[in-house]
Amino acid sequence: MSQKSDGMNYAPQGKPSPVVKPGEFTFAAAFLEHGHIFGQCNGLLEAGAELKWVYDPDPKKVADFIAKYPQAKAARSFDEILADPAVKLVAAAAVPCDRGAIGGRVLEAGKDYFTDKAPFTTLEQLATAKAVVARTRRKYAVYYSERLHVESAMFATDLVAGGAIGRVIQVLGLGPHRIGNKAARPAWFFQRAKYGGILCDIGSHQFEQFLTFSGATDATVTHAAVGNYGNPETPELEDFGEASLLGNNGSTNYVRVDWFTPAGLSTWGDGRTVILGTKGYIELRKYVDVGREKTSDHVYIVDEKGEQHLNVTGQVGFRFFGQLILDCLNGTEKAMTQEHTFKAAELCLRAQLAAKRIA
Amino acid sequence: MSQKSDGMNYAPQGKPSPVVKPGEFTFAAAFLEHGHIFGQCNGLLEAGAELKWVYDPDPKKVADFIAKYPQAKAARSFDEILADPAVKLVAAAAVPCDRGAIGGRVLEAGKDYFTDKAPFTTLEQLATAKAVVARTRRKYAVYYSERLHVESAMFATDLVAGGAIGRVIQVLGLGPHRIGNKAARPAWFFQRAKYGGILCDIGSHQFEQFLTFSGATDATVTHAAVGNYGNPETPELEDFGEASLLGNNGSTNYVRVDWFTPAGLSTWGDGRTVILGTKGYIELRKYVDVGREKTSDHVYIVDEKGEQHLNVTGQVGFRFFGQLILDCLNGTEKAMTQEHTFKAAELCLRAQLAAKRIA
Repeated sequence: MSQKSDGMNYAPQGKPSPVVKPGEFTFAAAFLEHGHIFGQCNGLLEAGAELKWVYDPDPKKVADFIAKYPQAKAARSFDEILADPAVKLVAAAAVPCDRGAIGGRVLEAGKDYFTDKAPFTTLEQLATAKAVVARTRRKYAVYYSERLHVESAMFATDLVAGGAIGRVIQVLGLGPHRIGNKAARPAWFFQRAKYGGILCDIGSHQFEQFLTFSGATDATVTHAAVGNYGNPETPELEDFGEASLLGNNGSTNYVRVDWFTPAGLSTWGDGRTVILGTKGYIELRKYVDVGREKTSDHVYIVDEKGEQHLNVTGQVGFRFFGQLILDCLNGTEKAMTQEHTFKAAELCLRAQLAAKRIA
Repeated sequence: MSQKSDGMNYAPQGKPSPVVKPGEFTFAAAFLEHGHIFGQCNGLLEAGAELKWVYDPDPKKVADFIAKYPQAKAARSFDEILADPAVKLVAAAAVPCDRGAIGGRVLEAGKDYFTDKAPFTTLEQLATAKAVVARTRRKYAVYYSERLHVESAMFATDLVAGGAIGRVIQVLGLGPHRIGNKAARPAWFFQRAKYGGILCDIGSHQFEQFLTFSGATDATVTHAAVGNYGNPETPELEDFGEASLLGNNGSTNYVRVDWFTPAGLSTWGDGRTVILGTKGYIELRKYVDVGREKTSDHVYIVDEKGEQHLNVTGQVGFRFFGQLILDCLNGTEKAMTQEHTFKAAELCLRAQLAAKRIA
């Protein structure tokens, strides 16, 4: 299970659940800098999309990709993909600082864009993307995988929206990640300007979850800090980050992200989400029930009636991808609104900007 | 198990482990406003202390106390206890705002003082107590029960001190409490000036644990907030509080306390402590392993070698009480230094003062 030991190459697979017929929705994959591209493609393919092209400047990345997805044809240039009118959407996982500019090219070419998180590393990139979206009316979608591609988190999305725990007071998210073999990581991973900082990078998942679970549509950053506690040889790597937010509906958010998953953990990170409501709380043990079960998607619910433990693996699926395809075809926003997508991006950028360096 | 359903009357019992012979250490109990007094007395009695007196202005509280501890004689006044040279220590759980002044009287009478947490509600009370300690050389000890009277927390104290998880980066504490039948609570519980605010009151446990687990000897409050989300009929009750601290050794602390334990939880609160180190992490599920086991003191340890789950109930004991008795007799500080006791108190007061009211 090497996939499970390494978050960067963790590409969940679900049950095929096509929302379109063969040929109705064609996409391309480009810029394969982060292993999330495989999760993005799996999700779209399971929802019925057809993968036509792949592009990356590095022939080895392209060859590895085609080994997994033989239906993909290697494009000679990114422009070759942009010039193909059959392509409706481009999925990409570029170096984070380049994601905004690439998205601009995709949207200007009349296609929708589906980028790995974090979608931007600066507020200027976000402002530019907002302008391009307004002008082109295309979609700038983001793979916030720690909710969208996690069954327990999608399960909690519905539970909370249904009022299971009353009014949400706080969303607390712990996002530890394994750094693994640092020599196998790309250079940009250790360059602050390229990956954007830890709250921007792996923090982005957390702020998206806060908005979703709390129902807040905006928030202020009340505290943020980052540090390098254990990686002096890569000084620009922030291996610890934390932030507190106050939502515009009075809900709060605390987030801790780090690169300190110990070698002994059976998966890449003991990701947790605790959602506290006025009538109960929910804890998600997303990737492992530590010390108990080496399976994912454990949901603990405590309410007025009692304590429940559910394992929802295989019970929920990943509806985001099919909804995204239909949104692209129909001009709807059922998978995620553009406003929500951009607000989550803004919050991770603002948290990063507010962060004090404490170690 | 009504005791377990109600944190206010949760009085742990351990195995008797006397450090003194009968008659060598005599104490009195006074001011029985909080049920913690029973935990304080149990701990001292199991360590070999003799309980001679009890005092409270309310005869019913005294009668209930004597029903549990028939060896205690009802004092006609608090002064009667203070005047008895046989009494070495006074254990008390007064209304929080009165704890400092009562402690002053005890120390001035030449006895040591063992108060329920929080020991103060203002920095002025703390300053006065420091002066009294300096002048009298007596002890102002505090019952920080969520570590001292919790076997898993005492177990973690030793594990962390022994380097099991490397350098401590963060201590994260969740301290949810059940409010239960509000009509059965004393009036002071709902009066902000008397209980001191939620970060001062139940937050005090958390800051003591931060200092202990991290090894920090001081800290700054980087963020704090309090609110009333679900109790509009008692507007001075803060039912939610959170704080972030930065220790003087670079470690961080995040604390959330609340009064939202749902009716369905099998105990009074799903208290958790997560200690993140550079070489592993420890999670304590102190009072219940939610949805799994209705037993207390579950310790989860993840390090370079693997994941472990231990239940340490009955394995650790409560050494604090015996150490406190010997410290009083010998002038040592093995149970807890006065500096640490007061620093934990100071941090909860500073966090409370820094807190923004957000709901």
